[in-house]
Amino acid sequence: VNVTSDQHGAHTDWLTLNIGGRLFTTTRSTLVSKEPESMLAHMFREKDVWGNKQDQHGAYLIDRSPEYFEPILNYLRHGQLIVNEGINIRGVLEEARFFGIEQLAEQLEVVIKNSQPPEDHSPIS
Amino acid sequence: VNVTSDQHGAHTDWLTLNIGGRLFTTTRSTLVSKEPESMLAHMFREKDVWGNKQDQHGAYLIDRSPEYFEPILNYLRHGQLIVNEGINIRGVLEEARFFGIEQLAEQLEVVIKNSQPPEDHSPIS
Amino acid sequence: VNVTSDQHGAHTDWLTLNIGGRLFTTTRSTLVSKEPESMLAHMFREKDVWGNKQDQHGAYLIDRSPEYFEPILNYLRHGQLIVNEGINIRGVLEEARFFGIEQLAEQLEVVIKNSQPPEDHSPIS
Amino acid sequence: VNVTSDQHGAHTDWLTLNIGGRLFTTTRSTLVSKEPESMLAHMFREKDVWGNKQDQHGAYLIDRSPEYFEPILNYLRHGQLIVNEGINIRGVLEEARFFGIEQLAEQLEVVIKNSQPPEDHSPIS
Amino acid sequence: VNVTSDQHGAHTDWLTLNIGGRLFTTTRSTLVSKEPESMLAHMFREKDVWGNKQDQHGAYLIDRSPEYFEPILNYLRHGQLIVNEGINIRGVLEEARFFGIEQLAEQLEVVIKNSQPPEDHSPIS
Repeated sequence: VNVTSDQHGAHTDWLTLNIGGRLFTTTRSTLVSKEPESMLAHMFREKDVWGNKQDQHGAYLIDRSPEYFEPILNYLRHGQLIVNEGINIRGVLEEARFFGIEQLAEQLEVVIKNSQPPEDHSPIS
Repeated sequence: VNVTSDQHGAHTDWLTLNIGGRLFTTTRSTLVSKEPESMLAHMFREKDVWGNKQDQHGAYLIDRSPEYFEPILNYLRHGQLIVNEGINIRGVLEEARFFGIEQLAEQLEVVIKNSQPPEDHSPIS
Repeated sequence: VNVTSDQHGAHTDWLTLNIGGRLFTTTRSTLVSKEPESMLAHMFREKDVWGNKQDQHGAYLIDRSPEYFEPILNYLRHGQLIVNEGINIRGVLEEARFFGIEQLAEQLEVVIKNSQPPEDHSPIS
Repeated sequence: VNVTSDQHGAHTDWLTLNIGGRLFTTTRSTLVSKEPESMLAHMFREKDVWGNKQDQHGAYLIDRSPEYFEPILNYLRHGQLIVNEGINIRGVLEEARFFGIEQLAEQLEVVIKNSQPPEDHSPIS
Repeated sequence: VNVTSDQHGAHTDWLTLNIGGRLFTTTRSTLVSKEPESMLAHMFREKDVWGNKQDQHGAYLIDRSPEYFEPILNYLRHGQLIVNEGINIRGVLEEARFFGIEQLAEQLEVVIKNSQPPEDHSPIS
């Protein structure tokens, strides 16, 4: 019942993710198309196959950080890695790895490596 | 039933956008008047013509970043590009392009070009 | 029915503003007393005279930026202009002008003028 | 009916404050015990004596800034003044004064005095 | 009724914490497994044994700071301490101590010690 036609005429359906308590609304095609081999794509490729648990409003429950998921969802929407100043890139990397989005994880590792001075070994940057 | 007269005596109606899970309440005239040739204006010019999908509360679903949409909506409200420190301008540019707000996209490209040192080629700034 | 006595024994009533989708709860006296000649004061001086549109929960709809309205409401509460680091003052100024809070707008213009280096003509600061 | 035993075996009850539209859930003992002579403690010492107005969900309405109240509530919870970078300390001071939390107000005044260069007289810091 | 199988085939159940008014959704195993000797693990190890108070939507009430709890929950999810720029580490330390997560508290103390210049004795950093 939640299926609609998107701007290119294809059929898609909308779903809401409950990531650690915050809601993200997106389409199945965003989660599945950009990185088809990721765990996230596998979780949502087939409707109700993976057995994702839903909350009482129908949002799919994922026990991860909402804050660091945000740039990941944007990356799946338009293919660009865009992170605000002050957001810890290592947090985004943890989520990219968890969701198995390999190409993004590699890109994030490069950014982290380039932004660290060689002598810095502190646990948080 | 949601039609009311605005401060200038004209008739307008209120609508709520569900952008990636966050709600923005605005008027149809804000979305349509400032940049009448944008895709956003086309989406909302005629009531229920474009076939925008609505969530269960009647908000129009758009699968994009809420954070970077905020300065775009403010631009449509008062014509000024105003972005907080720490917000990545490239994120705003992605949204301006998606919604087809050409004049704003050009303005954002100038800002990005001017703020980048010539030797910087990092993927995120 | 929403009338109660405030801490000084006077009668006041509570109302909620829906500014661009975010809710602000305050009292009529805060909106009306500090700057009685502002447009905001006129909008809320007399109950249901101005014809403000309400959302389905009774909050008054205003098609403006919630983020930049926050310091304006605090100013009306205690008379001080207090803005967090990273918040663009020009955004606050746009709202002060829209709501016709003249004294605050002038104060903001002085702050902007003092914070800009003379040679800076960039569209966003 | 909302009474429960806390981790030390004492009885306490939970309440929610609606500060300017944002909800804060805490216990009566947090509001009353740390600074027993403050106005805030007086407001909530005796159940339903002060006559605080409640919203439709039972949260107590207070017409103040939610953002600057947050470190004040944390102070009442554990006795430490902890403020994030970028939060204007003067905003926290305004709230400490309003709620009559004198010891915290004095501490904030010292912090402000120490952080200002002697020649700075700008209205916002 | 809220029990489901997680990605590794084990059974887990989802719960929501109401920390100071903000909701965090997570699994019991996240709260219990990473730091089994912490107070937080003890609070949620056995269903309904500790006597945690729930709000009207079934979320477990905890009278602490939501902002500083966020990195703690992420730590329990993936074992990394990741904090955004601008977040006061001392706030995170207060929560780690309250919830009895000793290993994390020690890690935070090292970070604080390393980030403070020797001559700095200011109450907020």
